[in-house]
Formats: sequence, structure tokens, C-alpha cells
Amino acid sequence: MTTRDRPTIADVARAAGVSKGAVSFALNGRPGVAEETRARILAAARALGWTPSHRARALSSSRAFAVGLVMSRPPELLGADPFFPSFIAGAEAVLVDRQEALVLQVVPGREAEEDSYRRLAADGRVDGVFLTDLRVDDPRIALLEQISLPAVTLGRPDVDSTFPAVVVDERSGIAAAVAHLVALGHERIAHVAGPAHFLHGATRRAAWERTLVDAGLPPGRCLVADFSAAGGARATRELLDTGEPPTAIVYANDLMATAGLAVAMERGIDVPGQLSITGFDDTEIAAHLRPPLTTVRTDAFGWGKVAARTLLDLIDGKPGADVEMPPAQLVVRASTAPPAP
Amino acid sequence: MTTRDRPTIADVARAAGVSKGAVSFALNGRPGVAEETRARILAAARALGWTPSHRARALSSSRAFAVGLVMSRPPELLGADPFFPSFIAGAEAVLVDRQEALVLQVVPGREAEEDSYRRLAADGRVDGVFLTDLRVDDPRIALLEQISLPAVTLGRPDVDSTFPAVVVDERSGIAAAVAHLVALGHERIAHVAGPAHFLHGATRRAAWERTLVDAGLPPGRCLVADFSAAGGARATRELLDTGEPPTAIVYANDLMATAGLAVAMERGIDVPGQLSITGFDDTEIAAHLRPPLTTVRTDAFGWGKVAARTLLDLIDGKPGADVEMPPAQLVVRASTAPPAP
Repeated sequence: MTTRDRPTIADVARAAGVSKGAVSFALNGRPGVAEETRARILAAARALGWTPSHRARALSSSRAFAVGLVMSRPPELLGADPFFPSFIAGAEAVLVDRQEALVLQVVPGREAEEDSYRRLAADGRVDGVFLTDLRVDDPRIALLEQISLPAVTLGRPDVDSTFPAVVVDERSGIAAAVAHLVALGHERIAHVAGPAHFLHGATRRAAWERTLVDAGLPPGRCLVADFSAAGGARATRELLDTGEPPTAIVYANDLMATAGLAVAMERGIDVPGQLSITGFDDTEIAAHLRPPLTTVRTDAFGWGKVAARTLLDLIDGKPGADVEMPPAQLVVRASTAPPAP
Repeated sequence: MTTRDRPTIADVARAAGVSKGAVSFALNGRPGVAEETRARILAAARALGWTPSHRARALSSSRAFAVGLVMSRPPELLGADPFFPSFIAGAEAVLVDRQEALVLQVVPGREAEEDSYRRLAADGRVDGVFLTDLRVDDPRIALLEQISLPAVTLGRPDVDSTFPAVVVDERSGIAAAVAHLVALGHERIAHVAGPAHFLHGATRRAAWERTLVDAGLPPGRCLVADFSAAGGARATRELLDTGEPPTAIVYANDLMATAGLAVAMERGIDVPGQLSITGFDDTEIAAHLRPPLTTVRTDAFGWGKVAARTLLDLIDGKPGADVEMPPAQLVVRASTAPPAP
């Protein structure tokens, strides 16, 4: 089928033996056609592969039939982050079925990001956006409300928000990792955190600290890194250089944990014999490292699907409620073991 | 500045002390305004931050002011591939300046991919597309020509194409990796290839084989995998299980090489003492593995920038010529060494 061959309402009318007007009524779900006729028209439309034209839809409404995702990370970090591709693939699985497009923007920093939202809204490019990488006291919530651009937040913001949130409890995954290390007998459990201005960075750190305190252990050292491999390596060196180094390190992502593993090996420190490490993300490579990485898994694909459904509902005017996704899960592999006696 | 505050042509006219008509002439580069007046108007427009409205542009032309990228890889592989995020970030660096949007689609397979192109064209969603992951005898070239959707191909297709190609010579990178191993004294150099129906998979394999033959060595074993970590691990096991295993393995990407490194360690095979390995991509983690990975680097960010410029030129009606990017470069790190005596 070429573009030219795309079935029209006239084709459907011919196939069903009715008028174009009847087809239009039936396809738009308006009254004025008998139920039996409507069923015949819908069957003919399906058989021909008829779908409403984007231009016709867009002309007859003020909608763009597109949603936006603006990412403001440095490109090299984007490339190493498994979250976005999986999230996008999940969102697409829903958007394609509903004939909605995804407009993607990658911007160098926060100011450019705000400009992006303003322009997407002013240009009528998108009907709503996914708000990711929530920040502490995130100013984008107020901005989007001000410019009336519907949004779904990934996670629950720490500021007032009128937008539905699609939430994965990351705390329970980190708490499970720390509890697993405590159960193995570790008492000096450090954390290599993500940047503190990101809510997920702050949340993972708080979960680590809380679980240690609840276990009656003093909170270990926490170094803040930037989610990059180089940052993870640097933090690991600093932790191992202290007089009483940790026997376990909980990393805020797999990339930093993988770099930490290499630092330990470089120093002849056996993982997990002398040092246990855990990651976060369950990247594809995590299970194929040596030793395979104990980590925390979230379902980014599923998160994308639910976020897309929630955003489209919101755009359709349905009241949006927060959605709780299954919590992050600890995946125990071979990078964790009891501490050396 | 809120959406409402966005400067209009009237604002520019007021600031420059001229009529709205004069502003329109000046901003559209049409004759009828004195040079000095034009300069004053442009200065006023810049000072106010005036930019043409997307809707006004789109209404006055048949353009969507958007380009498309359709990806048909499984989500889990997308997440592990550093190419797309870097490529997209590079393309965006150009698109944002030109106020062009990127419409992204992720589809499960080839048939869905063709549907995507047809629909993007029929809906007038995009003015052109990037064609990535070129295949042997790629049917998408003819499809895009048939539906009159302008495209830029990443790499040179092996079929007739009227589209400009933006080309990175990957062969020289693989050839340099093989030559490096030959110079170290290796004679049994195997290859873990990407799928043969992808041109880049086939090209990397051919470069490996050609370089061995040119060096007077028999081509080693080649196992075809799927660019995934699991595929790389499986192929490595099979290579190491042979009676006379290779002393070096050239992998078609870093992900498979990283998994291969873990397989070697698991068997107590020292890398690079007993086995040398090389990757392709120079992922962020490559330099932070133990040992750091010798690999081949391409500039995906720069590739995205040039591809975007080439596509926009083509859409603007400028004749498109193929562009040669700097070739892929070998990055020598510590995963390669002379073979064990």
C-alpha cells in the first residue's frame, strides 16, 4: 500500500455500501446510524485498514497528537544510561497504537530546557510532556502549570503539583540491598550517591541511610558523584583510601558500580571476598560482569507504558490520579558476600 | 517571559520605529527595505528575542518543521547501545537552533518500521528522516523514494540510492585493530560479528577478514552474534572451547567484548596475558573496565550534527552530496598485549 493507496472514507463507504456521511457518523461514534450498519461500517474500515488521517484529526481539533520528552543531560551520560531508551520504547508501545508521535529534545542545560518547554507549548508541537529526572524543589512544575502544558511526572515531586505522578518506589530496592548486606554481616556500608539536586539521587541516599539506622548501624560514608563511570571510579578510590575502608559499597547506578569494580580489581581487592558492591538499574551488562553484579531492577519499559497511558488520559481530559508501579527489586548475584573475617 | 509575553512582529515594529510590513519584509529577507533599516529591525528582533512562530511557518508552507528517526531494535538492545543517544544529541544540537523538532519512533520489527515511514509521510509529521542501521539490500531506500520522503542514510547503502549518505569509514578502525594485534605477534585472531544482514555488521567482518589476508594470515574463526551481552558471552565460550582457541578476539561492539572479558575471567584466562580482546564504540565504561578495553571510536555526536545539517539542506531543496566523516579510530588500552609464548 502506497501513500496514494491509503483507504479513504469513500473507500469504506463503497465497501460497506453506505454513504460517506454514514461512514463519518459511524467512525466518529456519533448517533444517526443503525447499530447493524455501524457494525458493518466498522468491519469494512478494519478490513481496508482505514485509520483517521493525522491532518484531518489535527485540523478538526486543536491537538498536536504528539507528546514531548525533553532531556537535559550531557550526551555522554545519556549514552550510558539504560533508562531512557527502555522508557521511550515502553512509551512508544502505547503511543504508536494511539497514533501519537513522540517529540524528543536534548538540551545542554536547565535554561535551554525551560526554553524548550515554552517553545513546545507556544508552537503547539505537543499536547503534553513527560517530566523526568525530578529535582529537589523542581521549578519546572510551576513553569508547566503556568504555560498550561499537561504533564506526567516520573516520581512524586517534593513541591505542590497538579500533575499525576507515575511512581516507582526506589527506596525499597535500596533498602533491600542494604538489608542484604547487613544480613551478610557487613557493618561498614558506604554509599556512592547521585547528585543531590536530583530527587532520585536524594531518595536513594536517604533509603541507604535510613536502613542502616534502622539496623542499629552507624551510617557509613557517603560520597556524592555524578552517575558517570569516572565519578564512580573517583569516589571508590577515595573510599578505599580511608583508614578504615568500607567492606561494602552501595552505588546509586550500575555504571558507577562497574567502574568501582574495576578500581577494586586494579588494587588487588577481591570482589566479593574483600569488598561487596551493589548497583542500581540492572543494565544489560550487569549479569555479564565478573563477578555478575548484585543490583536493583526497575521496569523502565513498563514505566514508559504507564506514563504514556496516564499522559494521554490527562490530555483527553480524564482526571489524572497518581499511579504506583511495582517497587524496585533487589537482584542478588555474585558481587556480594560476607565480609572477610 | 511567558507564552503570552512572546514578542510579536508588532513588538519588533514598535521597538524599531517602523511598520509591521517593514518588519515582515526585513525578517523574511525580501527586498523593499533599506539596508540600514533592515539592520535596525534585525537588531530590535534579536534584542527582544523574537523568533518566527512554528504555526505561522507551518501554515505558510507545507512543511512540518520536523524530522524523523525510526528505530526498530528490541528495547533491551537500545538501552545498551551508546550510539543512538549520542547521535540524537548531536542531531538535536543542530535541530534546536533551526527550530526543527525530532519525532522519534521505536517499533518492534521491520514491518512496523515500514508502516511508520508510510504514516509519518502520509500524516505530514516530518519533512525527512534519518535512515540508520542500514541493511544488506535495504528495501527502505526504495520505499522512501516511492513515498517521496527525503532521507539521509548513515553509511553508504549497497543498493542504488538517490539520498545523500553521511559516511564514517568503520573499516579503517577494524583494520587498525587487527593490524595492532598482528604487530603484537598474534596469528589466531577471531571475530565476534554483528548480524550479517546489517551493513555495519558485514562491513566490520569484511574488514577483519581482509586485514588478516593482507597480512598473510589465514582468516580466523568468525562467529555471528547479535550485538548483545548474552550473544557475546555465548560466542566467546564457543571460541574458547575449540581445540586451538584464538589468542585474540576482535568484537563488533563493546558490549559483546565486555561480556567476553567476563567469560575469560570466569575461566581463569588472563586478559591480556593469555587472550587479547578489542571492542567497537568506545562506550563510557570501556576505559573503566579491568583491564581497560582497547576499542574503536567513532564520533556519534558529530555524525548526528552532520546528518542533521545534510537532511535539512536536502529538505530545503539544496542538492545533497555524500559527506565523509573522520574515520573510526583505534584506541589502544590494556586489553591487548603480545600472545603468551
